[in-house]
Amino acid sequence: MTQTKYNFGPGPAMLYPEVLREVREELLDFRGYGASVMEMSHRGAEFMEVAETAESDLRELMAIPSNYKVLMLQGGATGQCAAIPMNILRGKTSADYVNTGHWSQRAIAEAKKYCDVNIAASSENNKFCFAPPQSEWRLNKDAAYVHYVANETIGGVEFHWIPETGDVPLVTDMSSNILSREIDVSRFGIIYAGAQKNIGPAGVTVIIVREDLIGSPLKNTPAIFDYALQVKNESMFNTPPTFAIYCAALTFRWLKKLGGVKEVEKRNIAKAKLLYDFLDASTFYRTPVEKRDRSRMNVPFFLHDERLDDKFLKQAKERGLLQLKGHRALGGMRASIYNAMPQQGVSALVDFMRAFEKEHG
Amino acid sequence: MTQTKYNFGPGPAMLYPEVLREVREELLDFRGYGASVMEMSHRGAEFMEVAETAESDLRELMAIPSNYKVLMLQGGATGQCAAIPMNILRGKTSADYVNTGHWSQRAIAEAKKYCDVNIAASSENNKFCFAPPQSEWRLNKDAAYVHYVANETIGGVEFHWIPETGDVPLVTDMSSNILSREIDVSRFGIIYAGAQKNIGPAGVTVIIVREDLIGSPLKNTPAIFDYALQVKNESMFNTPPTFAIYCAALTFRWLKKLGGVKEVEKRNIAKAKLLYDFLDASTFYRTPVEKRDRSRMNVPFFLHDERLDDKFLKQAKERGLLQLKGHRALGGMRASIYNAMPQQGVSALVDFMRAFEKEHG
Repeated sequence: MTQTKYNFGPGPAMLYPEVLREVREELLDFRGYGASVMEMSHRGAEFMEVAETAESDLRELMAIPSNYKVLMLQGGATGQCAAIPMNILRGKTSADYVNTGHWSQRAIAEAKKYCDVNIAASSENNKFCFAPPQSEWRLNKDAAYVHYVANETIGGVEFHWIPETGDVPLVTDMSSNILSREIDVSRFGIIYAGAQKNIGPAGVTVIIVREDLIGSPLKNTPAIFDYALQVKNESMFNTPPTFAIYCAALTFRWLKKLGGVKEVEKRNIAKAKLLYDFLDASTFYRTPVEKRDRSRMNVPFFLHDERLDDKFLKQAKERGLLQLKGHRALGGMRASIYNAMPQQGVSALVDFMRAFEKEHG
Repeated sequence: MTQTKYNFGPGPAMLYPEVLREVREELLDFRGYGASVMEMSHRGAEFMEVAETAESDLRELMAIPSNYKVLMLQGGATGQCAAIPMNILRGKTSADYVNTGHWSQRAIAEAKKYCDVNIAASSENNKFCFAPPQSEWRLNKDAAYVHYVANETIGGVEFHWIPETGDVPLVTDMSSNILSREIDVSRFGIIYAGAQKNIGPAGVTVIIVREDLIGSPLKNTPAIFDYALQVKNESMFNTPPTFAIYCAALTFRWLKKLGGVKEVEKRNIAKAKLLYDFLDASTFYRTPVEKRDRSRMNVPFFLHDERLDDKFLKQAKERGLLQLKGHRALGGMRASIYNAMPQQGVSALVDFMRAFEKEHG
């Protein structure tokens, strides 16, 4: 019998097995068309239907209001770190950024190419182990927008609340927690997310943007990043990453079948609780993030004796628990438990961790 | 028995069936790893080997000299239309562009955001039906580079010679004829190509760049487009489109197995000859491009009586000849016969065209 394997990689991450099986099933012949979905024109009726269904299902899953546009573009969240200031500075010269770790810092570095950046809040002095509470934010009323990272994939810090920024549009990188919980899209100016955690394979980026922010890009904005141009061309000004969009479409449909984001969120809460409860009860392992700001998606943890790290990772892999190594910036371990990770996967991890602790504790 | 289908789409285009079958075979479990290639970390040893093999096989296939870097990035050829001036103006203020049709015009429009554009030659006054001979080019010795499109996918015009530009770096969009013929890479500053014709699925772009051109990007260059940064990070400053790169790797390996570009070029010459000879002998069909500049990859053709177009396309589809409709800018028909199109596909097309002519001619 083949060993069941669970993939805790941070991204490109685990996909739903049901989605992968469907991809495989129709890989050589897309629904009787006589070619693979990879070989079809993005402008043909068949693929256009795939793309349109992807958008309408995403709109339904996230209850996206009608005054928001949805784009699916290449370039990743990192591409958007540049595209956002290029598109929505709208004549202003500064933007507010909250710094909660690696991905915040990348967004800040990109934004500085196009405007002044005001750091409205930061957790840098405390090793990025928490989300700065709203009371500590120093917002600038002339800012073009306020940017924060809803879930720091590396640090494992998640905002369990939506910041209040008044009339200044709120922009967030939701790459690693989009579709994992219900959120009120109307509170945001832009939500953007690389696909490779909760949506599909790497190579497509979802951008949900309030339409009044669109239309005054900087003059030197590359066409592929010009929101107005891409909206007008239904994300197809240049050839879109059709296969990645197709996989996203299958994932969205599967999420609807599961009961939508509400149901998925319940499961995510239960999975995270199982792992954090175990970590809290252990003296052998520790997790560095403040309780109230712990990510449901990415759980960094450490052995008190780091000399055991390699052994831990090796044995985990032998048990079919894959990609648990922490990011090189932090060391230790990280379990990414995105939507597609089943409860059994987290149970298997906890069982292994308990046994490893017994052996070495 | 299932009807054999041939896909003449311009891109995303036909892939080698052998490649698609291999993708399908290992889609759920990449070579015993226990996860799909789509689910693997781009920084893990397994995927790094895929990416490295893709690069070394491409280097071998194209005999890329060691002073050239190879990047595989998101954003398509259109993204590169902006990235190229951003990266290689190197303090200069103008670039030369040759205008041979749709993709030339797109490159020109993007370049104008970053520098002055001198149109060194153009076939616009003759409906883009030829490649301007070198004697007509008016080059500017202060240009940062000279840009031309080696094969115009829509117009079906191909350069069967490499322009001479002295010390000024030559840059070319080779999206639709890369790997279809032997070329001397050392004659170029940059060769770039979207994957979705001769390489793999849409979503990855190959950039072959001479290393002395790298390192002085414009200050507002998005990080994902900064060649120096991406070279330093092996095209992984941001998460790469791993699945598309994997498919490209399989295609490169398959091309080597077939005998390399030399062998593939022979087949392409034979396929193109079969179709053009038929068109030349017919009074029912016509093809607009000057003989010496006809593309081996994209063959636009027209019925003299365009009222028959819909019937032609409908009957072709019934015979399993897919995606023959011409680009909306030109109308009529277009047969894209990239590397992966077998000789039998072109024969089947010619047989059908002959029968259709007999019935309606």
